[in-house]
Amino acid sequence: MIVVLALDTPQEVLDAVRDRIESHPGLTAQVFNGVQRIVVGVLGSIPPDLKDELEVIPGVTEVVPISKPYKMASREFHPDNSTVTVGDAVIGGPEPIIMAGPCSVEDEEQMVSTAKAVKAAGAKVLRGGAFKPRSSPYSFRGMGVEGLELLSIASKETGLPIITEVMSPADVDTVARYSDILQIGARNMQNYNLLDEVGQLDKPVMVKRGLAASYEEWLLAAEYVMAGGNTQVILCERGIRSFESSTRFTLDVAAIPVIKRLSHLPIIGDPSHSTGHWYLVSPVALAIIAAGAHGLLVEVHPNPDVAKCDGPQSLTFENFRSMMDQVKAVSGVTRIMAATT
Amino acid sequence: MIVVLALDTPQEVLDAVRDRIESHPGLTAQVFNGVQRIVVGVLGSIPPDLKDELEVIPGVTEVVPISKPYKMASREFHPDNSTVTVGDAVIGGPEPIIMAGPCSVEDEEQMVSTAKAVKAAGAKVLRGGAFKPRSSPYSFRGMGVEGLELLSIASKETGLPIITEVMSPADVDTVARYSDILQIGARNMQNYNLLDEVGQLDKPVMVKRGLAASYEEWLLAAEYVMAGGNTQVILCERGIRSFESSTRFTLDVAAIPVIKRLSHLPIIGDPSHSTGHWYLVSPVALAIIAAGAHGLLVEVHPNPDVAKCDGPQSLTFENFRSMMDQVKAVSGVTRIMAATT
Amino acid sequence: MIVVLALDTPQEVLDAVRDRIESHPGLTAQVFNGVQRIVVGVLGSIPPDLKDELEVIPGVTEVVPISKPYKMASREFHPDNSTVTVGDAVIGGPEPIIMAGPCSVEDEEQMVSTAKAVKAAGAKVLRGGAFKPRSSPYSFRGMGVEGLELLSIASKETGLPIITEVMSPADVDTVARYSDILQIGARNMQNYNLLDEVGQLDKPVMVKRGLAASYEEWLLAAEYVMAGGNTQVILCERGIRSFESSTRFTLDVAAIPVIKRLSHLPIIGDPSHSTGHWYLVSPVALAIIAAGAHGLLVEVHPNPDVAKCDGPQSLTFENFRSMMDQVKAVSGVTRIMAATT
Amino acid sequence: MIVVLALDTPQEVLDAVRDRIESHPGLTAQVFNGVQRIVVGVLGSIPPDLKDELEVIPGVTEVVPISKPYKMASREFHPDNSTVTVGDAVIGGPEPIIMAGPCSVEDEEQMVSTAKAVKAAGAKVLRGGAFKPRSSPYSFRGMGVEGLELLSIASKETGLPIITEVMSPADVDTVARYSDILQIGARNMQNYNLLDEVGQLDKPVMVKRGLAASYEEWLLAAEYVMAGGNTQVILCERGIRSFESSTRFTLDVAAIPVIKRLSHLPIIGDPSHSTGHWYLVSPVALAIIAAGAHGLLVEVHPNPDVAKCDGPQSLTFENFRSMMDQVKAVSGVTRIMAATT
Repeated sequence: MIVVLALDTPQEVLDAVRDRIESHPGLTAQVFNGVQRIVVGVLGSIPPDLKDELEVIPGVTEVVPISKPYKMASREFHPDNSTVTVGDAVIGGPEPIIMAGPCSVEDEEQMVSTAKAVKAAGAKVLRGGAFKPRSSPYSFRGMGVEGLELLSIASKETGLPIITEVMSPADVDTVARYSDILQIGARNMQNYNLLDEVGQLDKPVMVKRGLAASYEEWLLAAEYVMAGGNTQVILCERGIRSFESSTRFTLDVAAIPVIKRLSHLPIIGDPSHSTGHWYLVSPVALAIIAAGAHGLLVEVHPNPDVAKCDGPQSLTFENFRSMMDQVKAVSGVTRIMAATT
Repeated sequence: MIVVLALDTPQEVLDAVRDRIESHPGLTAQVFNGVQRIVVGVLGSIPPDLKDELEVIPGVTEVVPISKPYKMASREFHPDNSTVTVGDAVIGGPEPIIMAGPCSVEDEEQMVSTAKAVKAAGAKVLRGGAFKPRSSPYSFRGMGVEGLELLSIASKETGLPIITEVMSPADVDTVARYSDILQIGARNMQNYNLLDEVGQLDKPVMVKRGLAASYEEWLLAAEYVMAGGNTQVILCERGIRSFESSTRFTLDVAAIPVIKRLSHLPIIGDPSHSTGHWYLVSPVALAIIAAGAHGLLVEVHPNPDVAKCDGPQSLTFENFRSMMDQVKAVSGVTRIMAATT
Repeated sequence: MIVVLALDTPQEVLDAVRDRIESHPGLTAQVFNGVQRIVVGVLGSIPPDLKDELEVIPGVTEVVPISKPYKMASREFHPDNSTVTVGDAVIGGPEPIIMAGPCSVEDEEQMVSTAKAVKAAGAKVLRGGAFKPRSSPYSFRGMGVEGLELLSIASKETGLPIITEVMSPADVDTVARYSDILQIGARNMQNYNLLDEVGQLDKPVMVKRGLAASYEEWLLAAEYVMAGGNTQVILCERGIRSFESSTRFTLDVAAIPVIKRLSHLPIIGDPSHSTGHWYLVSPVALAIIAAGAHGLLVEVHPNPDVAKCDGPQSLTFENFRSMMDQVKAVSGVTRIMAATT
Repeated sequence: MIVVLALDTPQEVLDAVRDRIESHPGLTAQVFNGVQRIVVGVLGSIPPDLKDELEVIPGVTEVVPISKPYKMASREFHPDNSTVTVGDAVIGGPEPIIMAGPCSVEDEEQMVSTAKAVKAAGAKVLRGGAFKPRSSPYSFRGMGVEGLELLSIASKETGLPIITEVMSPADVDTVARYSDILQIGARNMQNYNLLDEVGQLDKPVMVKRGLAASYEEWLLAAEYVMAGGNTQVILCERGIRSFESSTRFTLDVAAIPVIKRLSHLPIIGDPSHSTGHWYLVSPVALAIIAAGAHGLLVEVHPNPDVAKCDGPQSLTFENFRSMMDQVKAVSGVTRIMAATT
């Protein structure tokens, strides 16, 4: 951490800065007289609130963090890629893992037929929402536990493991009982009580990026889960909010190589929520895979025009099969390249 | 709601659109042949998911909502201003109500001295965080129930009612026992289980705008609370996330007159979190008041340079008094003007 | 165009709206009484300022455009893909065209060696900046006409056509004399005098998306060029400004399929400027190609660590060759898929 | 400037960093061994491209600028406020200066009546557009020189000095002949040839903030003008582009105190373009003044519903008078406060 002060800073202020730093056991301050500024370097392991403590001292112009505030989620902490295994799927390995299914669970026939169709096309994980976050209180909000039961039936029929969203700390145990991966949705990425709660589990957790979350805040959300003891974390880029309103969100495709550089955690992408239109799902899915993601989360519905939720962005079985053929082709090519570089 | 189709849309598609609309009891479709497009108008009270249902029909180019998705929060539903009363404070009336106090409760001396100081300067509500949402799991996360006790002591000493944040549905009853207004933080604006829970209370709730929330999403968050039966809702503009990173967030000052036009609910502004720097708090507070807000939420600390949280954006007692003098002067002037126009 | 009014709108206002619409030759108004609103549809070819004219009438709640404001750039105007041909390169055809070279022209050796290297690796167009837009007036701003001369030498040595930026209407003729494609930079996307000027040429123009430009504004910038008579327009997605500051800009990969749907114009992507870091260029380039772009614009430098501009985002010759191998593999696969779907 | 490297950085890399720094005359490098990182401080006056030069050295993790890249525009360069005087108006002094008039010049009667009305209400500068930047090539683009003539007539009738926009370097001399302040519009904030050209004048220039410009980029645009020798620069906050689309742009009210801290240049605000709706102009204007701005730029039209441009955001004469009464009241109060603090 670097503390910047004006050249004419009085000695008392400099002393206050040094004292504040050295009041933390293990930290030392090193003063560095520039031509235009005085800079104080902080040596040691930086406590998370030190920036605030120093910024408040009158005379301090700027405090620049150098170390990253996340530890366990960082590539430095764990230089090799992590993998998360559920059923047949190794997420974070060389093969991209496709997770597919409807936005919301509606009935047994819908879930079982979708599970069979996505499995046949190559998906390794079944998705489906039983607890649905909806902008309006008057929208369909999911079937709840009954939906989890239907997911379970579809999983048993096909052998596909399940990923499903949990929205409230009180539901964590129930959802964990029925699912193989718990999903933290974008709107709950900074619901810290929920992150604490899933951090207590011995079960994989997928953390979607918040609509306005920086890479650092997103990795800190993963850190919350890991700090609780649960290191089986997967990240999912699902689009950020930008000024462009023709698509539902703006998929930040560069997030994939950036996160792979900063963190060892697996990262997948969601072309359905980010675009909001089924005809954009395939090209964006291919982009995500080509950028090096470890997988995809895709909405598929037997009959999108009667879906209770997110119909416009859901693929039919046929469109999903076609997308999967393309994904396999692109990932085949990029895996060969990765192996030889 | 308006459904847009291409001029050469086949009759079957038009029929499908009409059938889908008229499958909802009380809705009728009216076709309107343009020169470049066919437009179908939907007559009746629009269900929240109709847009999705129609967008998915192949041939539909665009679906344009005309009515607003929020009802009870809208100015149309309740043409006069709503007010929320706590203690001496009528929020939503002609006098701006200032809520002030530290970011986080730290000890009795801090809370009581701050309560006295802000009361003396004219604040009508005491703020203080016992449950703190923090980006890093390693930051100080608040004193919890012990903090609520200290808030209570400070409230008893001064007679000031309390506003404090609640982060989890499980904590709602406890927080409600100790506080007069429950605050839903920006990061939890779309934590729907939490909104449902505070919607069951007979106690005021302040809903802060999410970092990336549109006016519509924010009013829908208020609608969640109101749909549960609790109509005592206050809104708080606290800055949105933009590309500008010199300030912590970007305070959207136009939100104040826009929300007053769209909704009857009281709206206040937070100059502390939005700017992140104490020296910006006063000018931004005056701007919020001049734009017509019903109040302010301001961070004040007896000694910001040892604050456990948000020190850089906290005002000293002296700075707060000086800000209050200015706020009173500006609001005096604008109240006179409002009375005469 | 749809005009929305309140149910209780007085007849005079309705008449004013109708009169204003029908004062434009060829337009007619059609009133449509809803349950919650009155809606007036406008039939005919909408003048660009009609929205403003109607919004200003007291009682009008909202004016919703239905038609797109761009005409010649739209897919409806020209249902088939357009192509732009320079040298060997057909931009907009099945093969992605790679344009590569240094950020800025520095000397003959640099330009000729780079031209040879990028040609050997498969690039079809040589890029290089002679007039450079720089945020600071104290940065290197390009060699000007001398730089164009060096580009010309490199072009003659290799046969590669040239793309280079023009920043001012006064320079258009000069730049056009030396180049095969004129580039309008992101910062000048709404420099309308410049767009008018290049609209007079019989030479291809590439319009980069502005940092904060919507799809509609970007296509309107293309429309400016086309309205002047020059239909050889190429679009380039180069990243938009978002709140995420770890990358230089946020590449909006969905822009590629969206623009291909809205417009017939070729669209390419720029992985160098959007990311700002050489190690992100390859993955983002592959994503752009996989999403269906007609080409790439990439910065390559013989020795990035002495480059006068944008060194951190420039590829070495070796990294460029490696990227090209991957691009060919991915585009081979996606072309096969496109051919069979 | 601070260069960050990993702890295990080989000595050759450290040497390369030091050599690159010290290859610039007057710079020295100072190495600082941290516990988790090595940090190299750069002493001396930093050239604008040094960041790029250092980032490209393999092994360099991050380069953090400490000094600001603008010089003449900075508060450090000129600790006292600058003022710009035109006619009776001292912009940057204690009294806020209101500049008002129509979006575009339409005819003599319109200009003269508006000039008289805004003068009577207290405006000190007359605005009016003769060259208009419009998103669509088919919109009305201004009367050009004929419009400048009409502005001149209105100025002579009332004695009000004129501010008007210049869009192209070729028009600078003509526009300068007719006007007292030249306006650089938001879309041209990074049109560097235009900035260079107005930098040659001995006449005030107002630089509007670009839609996506950071404070630093905006001050660098001012620096372009000043580096040319013209120090009479005024800044204007006119709203940035955010995800919120209900208002035309998002006025960043905190920009006013931030810019006053970073720079000595006068700063005004534009409540008309930022909001896009006349009924939001007054509250946002008051907010701008209360935040400490040196003035306002406001659109006024004798008959907004027949305006050729921006009718929806223009005030009538009566609304302008009412806004002016409020502005005077608020600025009276804030001036008294500033005088006593």
